[in-house]
Amino acid sequence: MEHNLQHTISLLTRTPAVLNALLRNLPETWTLRNEGENTWSAYDIVGHLIHGERTDWMPRVKRVLHSGEARAFDSFDRLAQLRESQDKSLEQLLDEFARLRSENLAELRALNLRPEDLQRRGQHPALGVVTLSQLLATWAAHDLTHLHQISRVMAHQHREAVGPWSAYLGVLQCAGHSAP
Amino acid sequence: MEHNLQHTISLLTRTPAVLNALLRNLPETWTLRNEGENTWSAYDIVGHLIHGERTDWMPRVKRVLHSGEARAFDSFDRLAQLRESQDKSLEQLLDEFARLRSENLAELRALNLRPEDLQRRGQHPALGVVTLSQLLATWAAHDLTHLHQISRVMAHQHREAVGPWSAYLGVLQCAGHSAP
Repeated sequence: MEHNLQHTISLLTRTPAVLNALLRNLPETWTLRNEGENTWSAYDIVGHLIHGERTDWMPRVKRVLHSGEARAFDSFDRLAQLRESQDKSLEQLLDEFARLRSENLAELRALNLRPEDLQRRGQHPALGVVTLSQLLATWAAHDLTHLHQISRVMAHQHREAVGPWSAYLGVLQCAGHSAP
Repeated sequence: MEHNLQHTISLLTRTPAVLNALLRNLPETWTLRNEGENTWSAYDIVGHLIHGERTDWMPRVKRVLHSGEARAFDSFDRLAQLRESQDKSLEQLLDEFARLRSENLAELRALNLRPEDLQRRGQHPALGVVTLSQLLATWAAHDLTHLHQISRVMAHQHREAVGPWSAYLGVLQCAGHSAP
């Protein structure tokens, strides 16, 4: 399937509003609890998305355009939000994510990427050669992987309360599929 | 964990806005495609949620209150939306879901359920005895299982486009965990 940049942007644009609708002012039972030791709450996940906006997606787009394969991407710190989000409310994090995403999409649109630009190549520190098209498609899929995770973490908080219905709820069978 | 009715309602209230923010006017690449034969698109899932509002949740609440264990719940038709949603746009379905959910929550609130009511028992046609508390907790978890599914179905549409990043995206490892 050919990657369509406008379709990717249309999804990326929506994610802050989705998280707002789901999480803002929701009781902390839903937003601050996780799935057990060394797992993330919805609050942690929003912090992770913020860190990605700051250090991952657009910096990597610009690295591809400026340096191609000559200079690998900086590694992404998957635990940074546990330090950076301290003392902030979930509502502050949601506002910050919305602002950063909006700024990043404005910057992306201003690049006026042409189809041939999407084929430009960069160097991922672990995955090797990747294209700009793959990087942008991953940005959107990364939003979805964390929406998938948030819905699972929240459903976990009702695991006991649903009683025998747990057998019918696919989300309660999900093992998380953690990635390296 | 004790089931808190207000927490359940606070989640149930939000789901229409979450689906609106995610799906309304999104390109059909995201909303009409599924994961392969006999699987559901985001469009199909919204139809399924509508059918639940009409025939499942509040009718079962009332069955428990009126008949207890004496009369089992009617079975839920998991394929009804494939007939009922025909010819409707996704935007029409989103409006219909929001209206039905709002009406059902108004009806639920009007019942003024007390803690002892939540322990009342009903008869599920396959699962046996269940409590009103479990039924209400399941209503919220059912929203989450379908948000989990929608995020997975949508991510599937970028499976090829993300290239080697697919190894890092948990949602692309999710097998769906279909339930009976």
